[in-house]
Amino acid sequence: MEVTQSNFVNVLPEIEEAIKNCTFISIDCELTGLKTALNHINAFDTPKKFYEKVLNDCKEFLLIQYGLSFFRYEKKNDVFKHKSYNFYIFRKPVKKFLEDQRFMCQTSSIDFLINEGFNFNKLFKEGVSYLNNVEEDSYRANLEEFQRKLKESSISRTNSNDIIPIPDEHKEFIEEIIQKIKDFINSDDTEMEIPRCNGFLRRLIYQTCHQNFSDMVTLETRLQNKDRILFAMKCKTAQEKEDIMEKKMQDMLNTFENSIGFSKVIKKIIESEKIIVGHNMLLDFLHTIHKFVTPLPENYCDFKECASSLFPRVLDTKYISSTEPFKGLVNSTVLGQLLELVSEKPFEMPRYEVEDGCLSYNINDDKQHEAGYDSFITGLILISLWKYLGSKKNLSNGNIFDNLGHKLFDPYLNKIYLMYLTDNQYLNLSGEDLNPSRDHVFHLVFPKQWTTNNIVQLFSPFGAVYIAWISEVSAFVGLMKKDQAAVALKTLSQSDTYSIMTFAKHQAISAGLRPIAPSPLKKRKSNEGQVPNKKRRTDSFDGSSFSASKRSISPIEEAPEEVEENKSNKKNVFEEAEWN
Amino acid sequence: MEVTQSNFVNVLPEIEEAIKNCTFISIDCELTGLKTALNHINAFDTPKKFYEKVLNDCKEFLLIQYGLSFFRYEKKNDVFKHKSYNFYIFRKPVKKFLEDQRFMCQTSSIDFLINEGFNFNKLFKEGVSYLNNVEEDSYRANLEEFQRKLKESSISRTNSNDIIPIPDEHKEFIEEIIQKIKDFINSDDTEMEIPRCNGFLRRLIYQTCHQNFSDMVTLETRLQNKDRILFAMKCKTAQEKEDIMEKKMQDMLNTFENSIGFSKVIKKIIESEKIIVGHNMLLDFLHTIHKFVTPLPENYCDFKECASSLFPRVLDTKYISSTEPFKGLVNSTVLGQLLELVSEKPFEMPRYEVEDGCLSYNINDDKQHEAGYDSFITGLILISLWKYLGSKKNLSNGNIFDNLGHKLFDPYLNKIYLMYLTDNQYLNLSGEDLNPSRDHVFHLVFPKQWTTNNIVQLFSPFGAVYIAWISEVSAFVGLMKKDQAAVALKTLSQSDTYSIMTFAKHQAISAGLRPIAPSPLKKRKSNEGQVPNKKRRTDSFDGSSFSASKRSISPIEEAPEEVEENKSNKKNVFEEAEWN
Repeated sequence: MEVTQSNFVNVLPEIEEAIKNCTFISIDCELTGLKTALNHINAFDTPKKFYEKVLNDCKEFLLIQYGLSFFRYEKKNDVFKHKSYNFYIFRKPVKKFLEDQRFMCQTSSIDFLINEGFNFNKLFKEGVSYLNNVEEDSYRANLEEFQRKLKESSISRTNSNDIIPIPDEHKEFIEEIIQKIKDFINSDDTEMEIPRCNGFLRRLIYQTCHQNFSDMVTLETRLQNKDRILFAMKCKTAQEKEDIMEKKMQDMLNTFENSIGFSKVIKKIIESEKIIVGHNMLLDFLHTIHKFVTPLPENYCDFKECASSLFPRVLDTKYISSTEPFKGLVNSTVLGQLLELVSEKPFEMPRYEVEDGCLSYNINDDKQHEAGYDSFITGLILISLWKYLGSKKNLSNGNIFDNLGHKLFDPYLNKIYLMYLTDNQYLNLSGEDLNPSRDHVFHLVFPKQWTTNNIVQLFSPFGAVYIAWISEVSAFVGLMKKDQAAVALKTLSQSDTYSIMTFAKHQAISAGLRPIAPSPLKKRKSNEGQVPNKKRRTDSFDGSSFSASKRSISPIEEAPEEVEENKSNKKNVFEEAEWN
Repeated sequence: MEVTQSNFVNVLPEIEEAIKNCTFISIDCELTGLKTALNHINAFDTPKKFYEKVLNDCKEFLLIQYGLSFFRYEKKNDVFKHKSYNFYIFRKPVKKFLEDQRFMCQTSSIDFLINEGFNFNKLFKEGVSYLNNVEEDSYRANLEEFQRKLKESSISRTNSNDIIPIPDEHKEFIEEIIQKIKDFINSDDTEMEIPRCNGFLRRLIYQTCHQNFSDMVTLETRLQNKDRILFAMKCKTAQEKEDIMEKKMQDMLNTFENSIGFSKVIKKIIESEKIIVGHNMLLDFLHTIHKFVTPLPENYCDFKECASSLFPRVLDTKYISSTEPFKGLVNSTVLGQLLELVSEKPFEMPRYEVEDGCLSYNINDDKQHEAGYDSFITGLILISLWKYLGSKKNLSNGNIFDNLGHKLFDPYLNKIYLMYLTDNQYLNLSGEDLNPSRDHVFHLVFPKQWTTNNIVQLFSPFGAVYIAWISEVSAFVGLMKKDQAAVALKTLSQSDTYSIMTFAKHQAISAGLRPIAPSPLKKRKSNEGQVPNKKRRTDSFDGSSFSASKRSISPIEEAPEEVEENKSNKKNVFEEAEWN
C-alpha cells in the first residue's frame, strides 16, 4: 500500500497492529544519494573507518522512500502472511518552528530513480514528514515559546521605540490608506483589501493603523498568489478573539503532530524489538536512525551502543547469503538475482500469501527498486534462507519459524554487510569487528606518473597483487601469496623512487602513535630493521572483491582489456561499484 | 513553448533566429535553492562582499528551468512581437566522461516550486543538458582518450599479468560456462545469454573466454532491468567489427553534442551582444555564467571583467523600478505587482503581440513563477518603463524603441539589484560600485543575553537605529540621525559591558589592515582618540530596507507586535525575506 500524507494518519493504526503481530519486519529505503564526492572507501578500511566515512553522507542526503513489509508466520496453516507499505518521505518546511533544510542529491541516484519510475512530484507534494528527537525537541520548544508570546502579545502593546518616522515620499500614500480605513469603518463591510505595496509600506500601515484605529480595526497579511496582501477587519468581541486564538493554538499543535509523522512508525518498531531485516542495509539502517530517531554519533563505539540498544536484532540478507553455507550456493547476492536463486533448488521457498484483506506486492510485480517491493522480496529471501538452515537440521517448518527457530540466525545476527572491503565483510553491531591479518599488505608511496602497471611490475617477483588506491601517489598493496610478505618488504625497501612500509606501521603513524617522518622516501632506510614478522594465517585470498583498481575510462566493461587500460589510468576507486 | 531534450535539437534553429532578430532578450530562472544555511547577507555588506557570499550558493544549487523571451520591435506597425521558451534544465550523468554531480536543494525552494506546479518528474526525465567550458573541455579530453584506447584495444591483446587464478569454489561454475560456450559455438545461434552471476565471476568468464575462444566468441555485458548480464556472440568479420566500432564512436560524439545542450543557446546569446533583461536578476545572472559559460571567479574584480565582457548590456527591472523616476511611482517592485502597476497610469504599456505562428504566453496565463512566463512579464515591464522614459522626453515610439532609444537606459545599464542591503542598491558590472558613507554606522560587540531592545535603549539618546545583526554577540548599528555619530561614539565608548567601534575601523581590522586586539572589550579605551570625523552626507535613511532585525518566532507577521517580539529573539537575519 502506498502511504503519503493524505492517508498516513488513517493507516497508522493498522501499521501499529502489524508491528505487534509480525514475526519479523523487512525494510528498504530509497535515498537522494549514496556517497558524496569525498570519502571514498578504501578496500582496506576497517568497519570503524567505513562508518566514519559514510556518516557524513547520511547527514547530507535524504531518505525519500521507505518500504516496510510485515511477515507473520501462521503455524496452523504453515504459511507466511505478509503485508507491505511504501511510504513517500519528505518534510515540508514549517516556517518559524523548523530550520529550512538543505539537502544533497547525487545525479546518478536521481537518474536511477526516475528511470525506475520514482514519482518526485508525489514525493515533494505528498511526502510524509518526520523528526528525529533533536528536531522534535527544538520544534516543541519553539512552538511553546511562540504560543507564550502570542498570548502575551494579545494583551501587551507595542511601545513608542518601534515607531518609524514616515518618509516624506510615502506620506501621501499613507494618508490615502488612512482615509480608506476610515471609510471602511463607516461602511457595513467586514473586511477590506488594502492596495498592494511593499513590505516597508505594509509595516508603516500596520503602525499607522495601530496608532489610529487600534480598537476598531485589526490588520492581517495574507498570501495570495504568492503576493502578501494586507486586509483590514473590524475588531471582534473579546470572546471571539479568544476563540480565534484557541483555534490557532490547536492548529499549530496539529501541524506539530503531523510533522512527527513517519518517526512514529519507527518508534513503534523500536518498542516492539522485532527482528529487522534488510539487504545490504548499512545505509538504510544509518539513515533510519539519523532521520527518525536521533542524530548519528560521531564516535563509532557510541554508534554501536546506540544502534544495538535501539535495534537489538538485525539481519542483513546480503551478509547472510555471502557467507557459509550460502556462499558457494549463490552466484550473485544482487537483490533481484538472489531472489531468483533462493526460489530454486537447493532452496525451497516457504509458502507465503498476502494478509487477508490487505494490499501487498506480488513477486511478479515489475516494481524492483520501489522501496516497498524491495522490502517485500528481502523478506522472501530471508524466509527461504531460514528454511534452508532449518532443513539442514531436519527441523519441521513449525520448529524453524517459531521463536525457537530464531537461533538458526545466531551466527548472522547484527552483522551488517560492508561493500567494497576485501577482508572485513561486516560491521558487528553487538560485538567486536573482525580484525583480519594485514601482514601481507603494504603502504606504498610513489611518483605521480606511476600507473597500476608500475606497481604490478614492482611486485611481480612475489606474485599477483591487490591494489587499493588511496591517492594519485599512494596505495595499499596486498599480496596474493601471503607468505611472500617478509621477503617482498625486504627486497623492495631499497629504492629512492618509492617508499614502502607495512600496513601496521602506516596505521600507527596515521593514528599518531608514531611520529611522521618528513618524507616517506627519506624515512625508508631507517625502517628496514623493523620489518614485522608475525605468524601468518593461510587464508585464501578473498576472491569476491578481486579488484580495487580504478576504472574510469575503460572501454569494455569487465573485458580483459579493461585491466590493461586501467594500468594507465588513475581515477576514483569504486566510483562505479554496484550498490544492490 | 516548452523545451525538453525531446524537442531541443529541433527548436534550436528557430531560437538562433530569434536571438538574431530580437530587440532584447528577457530571462528568468528557477533554482533548487537560493542560499545555503551559511553566508547570511548583512545589510551593510558591500557589493563585493555580497558576491563573495552568494558565490558558493551558485556552485551548490542547480538551475532547473530557464525562461527566455524574445522581444522584437516592429517599427512599421509600432508593436513589440514576442516569443517565449521555457526550458527544463537537467544534466543526466554520463558515465566515464563526466563527474557524477552532487547538488544541493533548499526545502523551501522545492516546496515553493511544487506548489507552483513545477514538474520535477519532467525535469529529471527530460531536462536539457549543459556544460560550462571546463566541463566541456574535460568531457572532450576524456572522450578522445577513451576513443584512442578503444582503437588500441581492438588491436592489442591482454598480457599474462592480468590473469586471476580461479578460486577452487568457482572452478565448477566456470567449467560449466566453458561447456555452454562450446555448445553455443557449435550451434546456429548468433548470441547466448550466460547465467547471471556477480562481477567477480563475470570477470573470470571474460578471462576464460579470452583464453579459450578469443577468435570465435566475443562477450558483452548488457544492463537488463538493472542487472548486468553477459552475452556471448559469434565473432564478426574484420569489416563488421570496424563498422561496429565506427558506429560506437559516432554515438559517443552525439552524446557529447547533446550534453552541451542549453549552453549552445547561451553561447549564441553572448555572440549576439543583445540586451539581456532580468528582474532581480543577480542569482539568475550568476548561475547563467557558472552553469553554461565558465566557473565564476573567486575574485570580485575578475568576475566583473568576465561578466561585462560576456554580457556587455544588462538591465535589471527591479533596480530600474526602485530608482528615480520610478521609485515614487510604484509601491511594489515584486514582479507580478510591478506588472500591474506599469500596466496602469501614469504608465502606458506599448502594444505587443505574439510573433506570427509562434507560441508564447498571454498576460492572463496563471503561470507566475514558471520561468518562461516570468521572463515574458519581465520583458513587458521593461517596455512599459522604456515607454515612460521616452514619453518624458516627448519621443515618438519609433524613436524610443529603435537603437537610438537605448540611451534612455544608460543610467540603469549594467546595474544589478542587490536585495537586503541598506545603502548599496546595486552591483555595477561596468564601473565602480557605490561607496556610501558609513560614518554613522558602528560595529558593536555585546553580551550574548542582549536583545534588540538593549541596543535600542543604548542608542536611544541619539534617535532611532537600524540594527544589522552579525552574530549573537555583534551587530552593525546605523544611526537614523547621521549627525549624531560623533557624539554617540564618544558617549558610548565608556563601558565594560560592550564594545563599540566605527564601521571603517572594523573594515580595516577585518581586512587585516590593523592588528586585531586580543579582545574588543579591552581594546576599546585605546581607540577613543581615533574616532574618524569625515564630512557627512545628508542622504535620507533608505526606507526601503528599514528592518534587518531578526524575525524567527514572531507571531504576527509585519504587525507592530513583531518588532517587540524580535527584541527577545536572535536568529538568522533575512531568513524569510522575499526574493521576487
